[in-house]
Amino acid sequence: MSEVGCPMSDVRFPMPRMPEPRLLEAVRWSPDQRAVRIIDQRRLPNDFVERDLTTLDDVREAIHTLAVRGAPAIGICGAMGLVVSAARHAHEPRDALLARMRELARDIGATRPTAVNLPWAVERVLNRAERTAGDGDAILAAMRGEATAILEEDRAMCLRIGEAGAELLPEKARVLTHCNAGALATGGLGTALAPLYVAASRGRSVTVLATETRPLLQGSRLTAWELSRAGIPVTVITDSAAASRMRAGDVDLCIVGADRVVANGDVANKVGTYSLAVLAKHHGIPFYVAMPTSTIDPTLASGDQITIEERDPAEVSTLGDRRVTAEGATVGNAAFDITPSALVTAFITDRGVLHPPYDFHRKHSA
Amino acid sequence: MSEVGCPMSDVRFPMPRMPEPRLLEAVRWSPDQRAVRIIDQRRLPNDFVERDLTTLDDVREAIHTLAVRGAPAIGICGAMGLVVSAARHAHEPRDALLARMRELARDIGATRPTAVNLPWAVERVLNRAERTAGDGDAILAAMRGEATAILEEDRAMCLRIGEAGAELLPEKARVLTHCNAGALATGGLGTALAPLYVAASRGRSVTVLATETRPLLQGSRLTAWELSRAGIPVTVITDSAAASRMRAGDVDLCIVGADRVVANGDVANKVGTYSLAVLAKHHGIPFYVAMPTSTIDPTLASGDQITIEERDPAEVSTLGDRRVTAEGATVGNAAFDITPSALVTAFITDRGVLHPPYDFHRKHSA
Repeated sequence: MSEVGCPMSDVRFPMPRMPEPRLLEAVRWSPDQRAVRIIDQRRLPNDFVERDLTTLDDVREAIHTLAVRGAPAIGICGAMGLVVSAARHAHEPRDALLARMRELARDIGATRPTAVNLPWAVERVLNRAERTAGDGDAILAAMRGEATAILEEDRAMCLRIGEAGAELLPEKARVLTHCNAGALATGGLGTALAPLYVAASRGRSVTVLATETRPLLQGSRLTAWELSRAGIPVTVITDSAAASRMRAGDVDLCIVGADRVVANGDVANKVGTYSLAVLAKHHGIPFYVAMPTSTIDPTLASGDQITIEERDPAEVSTLGDRRVTAEGATVGNAAFDITPSALVTAFITDRGVLHPPYDFHRKHSA
Repeated sequence: MSEVGCPMSDVRFPMPRMPEPRLLEAVRWSPDQRAVRIIDQRRLPNDFVERDLTTLDDVREAIHTLAVRGAPAIGICGAMGLVVSAARHAHEPRDALLARMRELARDIGATRPTAVNLPWAVERVLNRAERTAGDGDAILAAMRGEATAILEEDRAMCLRIGEAGAELLPEKARVLTHCNAGALATGGLGTALAPLYVAASRGRSVTVLATETRPLLQGSRLTAWELSRAGIPVTVITDSAAASRMRAGDVDLCIVGADRVVANGDVANKVGTYSLAVLAKHHGIPFYVAMPTSTIDPTLASGDQITIEERDPAEVSTLGDRRVTAEGATVGNAAFDITPSALVTAFITDRGVLHPPYDFHRKHSA
């Protein structure tokens, strides 16, 4: 198994060599660095709209409503969001400023409970603030640098995931993926989709089956959009059609992302991931989970300890303004599920491909 | 195994003893018998609207657009639809009339390719016409009687399915079902839901997990509606959440319907059925298929020979007026999948519970 114990925050990767086609930037600074500029993913695929987030409320609302989503991207957005929402307090005395930042960090970190990247990234920026001497301007500058480093490291990690994963793809690979763990979910090439982008940039043929991913259709809206934009052929199917496609021999391998991977290798990811993992096993199809090592949470022993976000039932029971679920029914809307590590063929990470047995007990980052 | 070889058309069941609460009638004659009166299922759960079908085009459009759906219900609707669309030709000479009916029967029978009940029921009414002496009025009256018999037999079969299946339910049964194989899909209590209605009418506690069933949400719109209406607690989940519910121990058994069951016991049913069958097997949960024996097609040896209807991609790629799938993507929309008989714990039929090994080589009906 690869080493995942060294402190990530001391590592500075070179800027990634982005494969062609040049991809989008889901989260970045506005030109004056006073705002977090995001692609509003609620508007895709119909409208490409960027939004600038400048306040705590902006940041929390964008993360909560999935305007920005994907474990790595919400980590980056949270880190940068802490900086921009703290900026208006730069004139306050150091202790008051740090106290306020802890409050902001706690608020941002609590916006979504399942992904580990969000509290991890926010905590990292907060720690940098606390370790920085001087006044508000100095502290803000250091925090901005830390958030920028998180973004740049994420881009580099995506590329490394892509390079590691590309080696696993057979000729004319037919890949099934779920939800969106692509460029829109990260600061770079994505996680699950990075191997496809790298392989395609090397001239290899790759085709994708994307599950639409109810209730919010990230596969249909986002994965199909970014793959098509990059010239990779993609077919969207309903989530429940994956099984018959596997049985028909249409799938060589599955690659999905992860919101949290715990010490024993259990994976929290978009609801439906576990379903696909069971189906892949039944059909003898490799099932890979791609993620940066920042997604590893060694503090939890097993997946049963992960808090699963239960989202608004209206995401399931309404389409646009129209109610689709009968009034008398209850609606369940767990946003994630847990895939036991035994169903994961390997993890594709920025530190290479990790095969079983999995042991993620050491913390990946200071 | 129960006897499935005796000629169904010679059997006349008593009128079913409908359990309380009294259920809806998805397909019936209008009071003057000049129209097929259906509940327009496209409007549920928001509006309860009945429509009268009087022409070939009405009937085909209602079946094609799923205003009426469910294998038994479209069989009944096709049979009754043949009568009402033939009625305007009753004055024609006998040979011309019969020729026209063969044409109408072919058109109706071809409206949807996967369910066997539709061509079976239409053929049965046509045969009755051909065997009836006399003029148009006599022929029409005989056809009307045959279509009515199909409806009444279906109601009786549903009740027998319900009585057979109720025996399989444990105390406080928690049942997972897919799509809608309920009263809305038949002339009576339904197939998959019939055991629940019978058990509930006997005062037993039953709760249901209903998968929403993309793309057309029959579980969310129809199953949740009819179960709530009957006072049976139902929770709607996305299709891909079924696996984690099974893993959590929330499911005692699965019951689904069938559009066609072939000689070796392979089952064509709503896409996602196969997925649930694999997941049930993985979790050690019984997986039952409920259907009248008219759903058996002994002319096909295995499921691979069944024609799977590929429906309009717009069912997946648009929600209301809004496009949700990126423009560049292809969309797959197979409406059914095939579940190999090895995954079926038992068939719940009007002739009792059929256990493996399955052998449906003999024709169930003349």
